[in-house]
Amino acid sequence: MASTPAQLVLQTLQYRSTISGYSSALFKAVKEMYSFLSLSSFPSYPPPTPPPPLAIGHHISTYPVNDHAITRYTMLYTSRHRKYHSRLSESISYPVTGVRCRDAQTRPLRACLGRNLKPCMEDEKPIKLPESYAMNGGDGTCSYAQNSSYQRGAVDGAQELIKEGVAAKLDIKQLSSSSSLNRFCIADFGCSTGPNTLLAVQVILEAVEQKFKSEKLTAQLPEFQVFFNDHILNDFNTLFQSLPPERRYRAAGVAGSFYRRVLPKASLHFAFSSSSLCWISELPEEILDSNSPAWNKGRIHYTGARKEVSEAYALQYAKDLDAFLHARAEELVGGGLMALLIPAVPNVMISSETTIGTEIDLLGSCLMDMAKMGSFSEAKVDSFNLPLYFPPIEELEALIEANTSFSLERMEIMNNPPKHVAMPSVRHRTLFLRACFEGLLENHFGSHIMDELFKRYSKKVAESSFTMNPDNDKSIFMLVLLKRKSESPETDSP
Amino acid sequence: MASTPAQLVLQTLQYRSTISGYSSALFKAVKEMYSFLSLSSFPSYPPPTPPPPLAIGHHISTYPVNDHAITRYTMLYTSRHRKYHSRLSESISYPVTGVRCRDAQTRPLRACLGRNLKPCMEDEKPIKLPESYAMNGGDGTCSYAQNSSYQRGAVDGAQELIKEGVAAKLDIKQLSSSSSLNRFCIADFGCSTGPNTLLAVQVILEAVEQKFKSEKLTAQLPEFQVFFNDHILNDFNTLFQSLPPERRYRAAGVAGSFYRRVLPKASLHFAFSSSSLCWISELPEEILDSNSPAWNKGRIHYTGARKEVSEAYALQYAKDLDAFLHARAEELVGGGLMALLIPAVPNVMISSETTIGTEIDLLGSCLMDMAKMGSFSEAKVDSFNLPLYFPPIEELEALIEANTSFSLERMEIMNNPPKHVAMPSVRHRTLFLRACFEGLLENHFGSHIMDELFKRYSKKVAESSFTMNPDNDKSIFMLVLLKRKSESPETDSP
Repeated sequence: MASTPAQLVLQTLQYRSTISGYSSALFKAVKEMYSFLSLSSFPSYPPPTPPPPLAIGHHISTYPVNDHAITRYTMLYTSRHRKYHSRLSESISYPVTGVRCRDAQTRPLRACLGRNLKPCMEDEKPIKLPESYAMNGGDGTCSYAQNSSYQRGAVDGAQELIKEGVAAKLDIKQLSSSSSLNRFCIADFGCSTGPNTLLAVQVILEAVEQKFKSEKLTAQLPEFQVFFNDHILNDFNTLFQSLPPERRYRAAGVAGSFYRRVLPKASLHFAFSSSSLCWISELPEEILDSNSPAWNKGRIHYTGARKEVSEAYALQYAKDLDAFLHARAEELVGGGLMALLIPAVPNVMISSETTIGTEIDLLGSCLMDMAKMGSFSEAKVDSFNLPLYFPPIEELEALIEANTSFSLERMEIMNNPPKHVAMPSVRHRTLFLRACFEGLLENHFGSHIMDELFKRYSKKVAESSFTMNPDNDKSIFMLVLLKRKSESPETDSP
Repeated sequence: MASTPAQLVLQTLQYRSTISGYSSALFKAVKEMYSFLSLSSFPSYPPPTPPPPLAIGHHISTYPVNDHAITRYTMLYTSRHRKYHSRLSESISYPVTGVRCRDAQTRPLRACLGRNLKPCMEDEKPIKLPESYAMNGGDGTCSYAQNSSYQRGAVDGAQELIKEGVAAKLDIKQLSSSSSLNRFCIADFGCSTGPNTLLAVQVILEAVEQKFKSEKLTAQLPEFQVFFNDHILNDFNTLFQSLPPERRYRAAGVAGSFYRRVLPKASLHFAFSSSSLCWISELPEEILDSNSPAWNKGRIHYTGARKEVSEAYALQYAKDLDAFLHARAEELVGGGLMALLIPAVPNVMISSETTIGTEIDLLGSCLMDMAKMGSFSEAKVDSFNLPLYFPPIEELEALIEANTSFSLERMEIMNNPPKHVAMPSVRHRTLFLRACFEGLLENHFGSHIMDELFKRYSKKVAESSFTMNPDNDKSIFMLVLLKRKSESPETDSP
């Protein structure tokens, strides 16, 4: 019987090259490492083809699974014909006997990789680095910027709620108490690209301005600084170029996973996140383990799968949301507000009843069809899973209330336009999914199958009376308004 | 006789579309505008070819020149095969009679362009928006990241000077006096991509840490936040992906010309800029005016040209440096430091004596050769000029001392490796220029001539005994260390 993921993944070591330009040194080091470990039979180190010319970074991670160690080598590279970045991964499993896993991994890695590759100790406690994935970049036909009308609906629907929330809950005196409020910092976590983040920021800014006016404090109106955060692979170039020139704020981009801290302590006054807190930071290991009851064979998500699969997803989501709230609690000043628009599902509902569930099921079945036709192996589909989770409302509420740094000021189901309104055609529905998932699918299956895959998907959606029936769309957005409690955030500083 | 640029450019109106997706609306509006102005004969509105599919933004600028108004329509677009962005410009000159220029421009533009296109009023005083240009993006063969060893030499050479400067001039008590110093903000203005900016930031950070240690204030060591600034067309995606994961600072990218303010008032503790304060924000108008004595026919720079040409460049440089110092004075807190590494030339020196001058001359002569062979017209070369200026030392010092917000703490010629050491081969020399100028050249001449142009250039450099003789390399870097005086920066706040 397989162990739990917590037992399996005893420890994770993460090494990353610091900057580009170390390709040859890294390849040499990897080769030496494998030679040291007598792993010369491993066929693809260094990869038989030369590395893509625009390689920009590398990860090596090693973790023990039972009596084997898995080493994964990942190279980020820039595809010549795409604006955003992709990755090339190779994994190796080798037996570890007679020595403790820790030593078996650490010594040769440290000895061979040397100073160019340093252990990742970016934050206080080393955590397993999340995979970085991003919505489609640019503003072309398949871009997120052009295909996020559904997500836009959530931001639109939240406008009044944010205004009311700021009017009722923002305490200017409290914010001014710790330091002079000559600048007001707003951050959008998981901003992606396109008009949605710009709208959200504008709504927040105007709500804060209105609050200052209503309290006759217009003369003390602070300067606004807005931080746009998303994964390191997000297309910040397109985002920066879309910033309105007449904006009334100073803009900055912050690249990095929002499941760890990305801003200085107690530097933020308003945190926002929309349509992002459904992406988990990594896939549960056991859904890829054929010995586990949570092995997710033949599917790409937990919908319609055994309960062990969705439980594994739920566990990861719980860890991630806790990490998110912990990081934001450190960044926000006492009295700071946070508005979250979180994709969710009604309580006590099996996930295949939500349209998003069936949409992902349809996509998975297209992949299985293509596997059966020989485009790739079925095992290739077994090893692909989408890192997405949609919590039931009560589960979400319990997770949020577990963090005692915040008070929950408001939580409600939003009245945003449903999918058949926001995306009236099959084409819209297809591009919506493609803009979100194409990067992940490409990494795993290669870019050459994308057009066929989404052509098949489009056909299946059109033929699915269930998916196209608006009554079956049970996916919802939750608005969550939180306030940072005023216990001094400096207590845990050095 | 032509007027001065100040008289010619009486007023500039800048309109930009807010975000992508307005292409068709914009084209309709432009068409209506030209119809309104009876300019139907203008051949290329809308352009005869459909717009590039990845258009990301537009500028329209109109300004009067004598009794004509020039309207320039610029579309930023993403080339499919390049990581950074390019532009497509069209200009029209039409007579203005019987009405004041201002009305002739404002009314139809406002009426037609409506709310999607708002006047650019980003800052306190509307200024003419600078053209945005950037070093070559990515990290491929012709990228700035791979071809900035000469600029790296300046940062290397400045390490000790920065350490000494921070040790001697950083007054922690003074910085802490206005507000609690729980975070220390550093910004690199004109950071581009690649290792140079990362090195500079690391040097500054370590110098500040050392200062805290030497004053036994290690317990109060603040958290560091670093802002990487460059033009909106800079390749921030590559920059973010090159950030070392084990860095000891929170990073943020800030897109926008550093000739205006990009950060909140009094929010910065250390400003840095290297190899950037040679790029002027726009070309002097008169060097393109065939009626002006400053017309720069047959050349692409002021080297070897009539003195009116270099005087026009010098005037623009003076305005720009003043704007830079003014913006930084607002951003820096009292007691904040600024280290500038500025490309310059020795005093009383004609610019063709500097190697950079002769290199640009050689590039210009390659363009003229290609024009003579029919690749494009000579007028095309006449209308191209590089927006670069290298001030003589005394001129630079006078410009810096004209700003009374700063005290000049140190100014000296740096001992950085000369070009023949930093770039030992003709290939290095060629790629150095290509990484810096290719974007500008492509915009004007098209990407199809780049390979031939730089092949010709490479040949000319190899054959030039003057350029290849190290004794003729008179280009220098000046280190300038400034300290923000402590007059309250809040006095000019609302």
